[in-house]
Amino acid sequence: MIFKEDTICAIATAMIDAGIGIIRISGENALSFASKIYIDTKGEHSLLNFKTHTIHYGFICDLDGNKIDEVMVSVMKAPKTYTREDVVEINSHGGRVVMETILNLLIKIGCRLAEPGEFTKRAFLNGRIDLTRAEAVMDLIHAQNEFSMKNSEIQLSGELFNKIDSIRKEIIYELAFIESAIDDPENYDLDGYNERLTKKNESWLSKIQKLIDSSNEGMIRKDGINTVIIGKPNAGKSSLLNKLAGKERAIVTDIEGTTRDIIEENIRLDDIILHVIDTAGIRDTDDVIEKIGVEKAVDSAKSADLILYIIDSTDSDFSHDERINNIIKENHVIVLLNKNDISDNINVTEEDIHKKYGNDIPVIKTSMVDETGMDDLKKIIGDMFFDGSILPKEEMYITNLRQREALINSEQSLEKVRESLNAFMSEDFLSIDLMNAYSYLGEIIGQEVDDDLVEEIFSKFCMGK
Amino acid sequence: MIFKEDTICAIATAMIDAGIGIIRISGENALSFASKIYIDTKGEHSLLNFKTHTIHYGFICDLDGNKIDEVMVSVMKAPKTYTREDVVEINSHGGRVVMETILNLLIKIGCRLAEPGEFTKRAFLNGRIDLTRAEAVMDLIHAQNEFSMKNSEIQLSGELFNKIDSIRKEIIYELAFIESAIDDPENYDLDGYNERLTKKNESWLSKIQKLIDSSNEGMIRKDGINTVIIGKPNAGKSSLLNKLAGKERAIVTDIEGTTRDIIEENIRLDDIILHVIDTAGIRDTDDVIEKIGVEKAVDSAKSADLILYIIDSTDSDFSHDERINNIIKENHVIVLLNKNDISDNINVTEEDIHKKYGNDIPVIKTSMVDETGMDDLKKIIGDMFFDGSILPKEEMYITNLRQREALINSEQSLEKVRESLNAFMSEDFLSIDLMNAYSYLGEIIGQEVDDDLVEEIFSKFCMGK
Repeated sequence: MIFKEDTICAIATAMIDAGIGIIRISGENALSFASKIYIDTKGEHSLLNFKTHTIHYGFICDLDGNKIDEVMVSVMKAPKTYTREDVVEINSHGGRVVMETILNLLIKIGCRLAEPGEFTKRAFLNGRIDLTRAEAVMDLIHAQNEFSMKNSEIQLSGELFNKIDSIRKEIIYELAFIESAIDDPENYDLDGYNERLTKKNESWLSKIQKLIDSSNEGMIRKDGINTVIIGKPNAGKSSLLNKLAGKERAIVTDIEGTTRDIIEENIRLDDIILHVIDTAGIRDTDDVIEKIGVEKAVDSAKSADLILYIIDSTDSDFSHDERINNIIKENHVIVLLNKNDISDNINVTEEDIHKKYGNDIPVIKTSMVDETGMDDLKKIIGDMFFDGSILPKEEMYITNLRQREALINSEQSLEKVRESLNAFMSEDFLSIDLMNAYSYLGEIIGQEVDDDLVEEIFSKFCMGK
Repeated sequence: MIFKEDTICAIATAMIDAGIGIIRISGENALSFASKIYIDTKGEHSLLNFKTHTIHYGFICDLDGNKIDEVMVSVMKAPKTYTREDVVEINSHGGRVVMETILNLLIKIGCRLAEPGEFTKRAFLNGRIDLTRAEAVMDLIHAQNEFSMKNSEIQLSGELFNKIDSIRKEIIYELAFIESAIDDPENYDLDGYNERLTKKNESWLSKIQKLIDSSNEGMIRKDGINTVIIGKPNAGKSSLLNKLAGKERAIVTDIEGTTRDIIEENIRLDDIILHVIDTAGIRDTDDVIEKIGVEKAVDSAKSADLILYIIDSTDSDFSHDERINNIIKENHVIVLLNKNDISDNINVTEEDIHKKYGNDIPVIKTSMVDETGMDDLKKIIGDMFFDGSILPKEEMYITNLRQREALINSEQSLEKVRESLNAFMSEDFLSIDLMNAYSYLGEIIGQEVDDDLVEEIFSKFCMGK
């Protein structure tokens, strides 16, 4: 591992005017650098003699001695710190100009501006946390819902590390046993070993399979469901969206790297995030088919995880739009027969839909006036995506693609072990695949990763963490 | 003063995902409330026995004992705290969901969500800081440039308070003297007092006048100059803007409460902020006169502090647009004769401008190719707005409208004292105006303010401060 031993600094809070801002310094010279720009009410500069984990009132001054800000400085000495290095946190007034001025001053006197995620990278490189915990830090910060927060917290507490670590310990024990038995057959008996290892291997496979299975749900629970709402003008798409969105409606975010025309609205169904995507602004969806053309709607729907197809059940002229037939057949679709409050005037029924698209397609009767149908919608989404319940189970889910891929790789290696065991291959042959599984599992916790991967993982972190 | 003694909490960092977030708690029960949701690595909850100004590693747990986040908790016991009350700061991971979950938990167990500025209001009500310092806190957080930061820091250090307080002490001494002399003429001699008080009064007036004078410059230095760039298409407006903006170009902000069509670009000339306003997006200014009509440009220019009128000096067809003549006469205008790099082809000269608009109008020769003219522009802006120099003087400026108004009121009262002294009015007559001046000065530092004003001032603060 290449490990830069210089002292780093960064703004650890958001770069938006707020009450408090934190400038964080970590490294061998953290205390001495901070001492150069700190002065207390008695005119003393040094932070070096303060006890660890203490807070001090004073001022940050520039090199000419001019006061820049009134601050509280937290002194945390190695090793019981975030990075395991000496850490100083300057709690300044949270104005952008103030925070930037202090940061620039630190850089001027010799601190280096930290790379994104570099504090957490140091925590990892210094052995305080493994890679699953480091990744949990970022997931926790970017958690969009309660599920992600709680799941990241479980991972941060070491649950995934422990699971992986215990399998690895068992694998390495077997590897050592095989090696010993081959080297020293007199003292190590391989009689019945095929059966013993098979039992072990199946137990590992079952644990790993469970983690991989959890990732299917986990990643959707964490990242949300890409949803497209389609339907004729006036079928009630906007009303549905308003109903779904509720108070969260205001959250409209531009997706990075795309044009401003692409608007994504994040709405919540309990704790599940639906990313409702529209190419011309969600507020115009009522006439999306007419106005921006059915092509774009079809494109969006094709790549969506979920299509809500809303039909005005009182529409006496209703006919299925043949252009969307393919979408209906290819995707997770829920048909919402809307305006069921006007019950004596129903022209489109559940039977009509089943006749057209088959009995498997879920149909819900909704009314935005009576506010009915939402519970049915949640139930069907629960069945479609979450094995029956929209609420998560009380267990850890894998939500990270890198971890999932490494799990799949280790699973494949152990499946090869299973095949070899079934074919009664020799023990030294088993060792290769066992070793591969061991390595892939090591990737997850950061035991077997190269510098490039570490760089790549932490480069996705935010500044100051 | 009505003073709520309950325990308050708020998120003190910005509500944007970032490395660290701070949830701040202040009040009598800050430690006991925080103890209810804190647990350390040994399973201990209580923060009550910790020494003041110490930092503790642990977890925030919900009421069922589920871990919500891994945190550092800062314990600061009264009276040496921001509010002079017990303060606990929870440094959590800076994700929005995490911060909101911890905040909601605190509210659930009995903390009250703080009003905007309530922590600083408590610092004020508890006598730690006066009103000038409280206002400096907010100015510091919202500082847009180095000037505002430094000036707020000076005010935060108590310089304005000390100035005002010393004048008030002198006034109250004279008021007491007059009262004593009237009550007890045998022991207090009013002979020659008119002259003595005149001297004092002139000294106060001079100090107050200086502060008021500083506010003219101070408020522009703090808030910036509303600027409109006008000129024919292809005169070089966009190039000028790019040149002015430099690296700061990216800062484009919507002004609150207006339509998205109104775009304001903040650009910097040294430390001076120019708010360049355009009704159709600054990037389209090249054809603003043709495209969105001269009316809007004229309207913007009329309310601007500064007009930069840019003319292509090589324009062989140049004629003054008669529609902008009125603007030129009414406002601070600087004419920029652009494209002076093509020196053998000059068709519009400084003389032409002076002939048309008089000799007082400043004219600069600019070239965006040679990058000439910027220093001249700075010099002229310095002359126009800042008494000769674009750089601020090393002294405190008044930048707050409320403070300025109270200073003007106190000045007027002391001017009445001057008139009365000149007319040799009786001493008890002087007392009324002296008392008024004393009260107005008291408003500035918060000695003579009613609850409503306090509410109003702090309601403009940000959350969590």
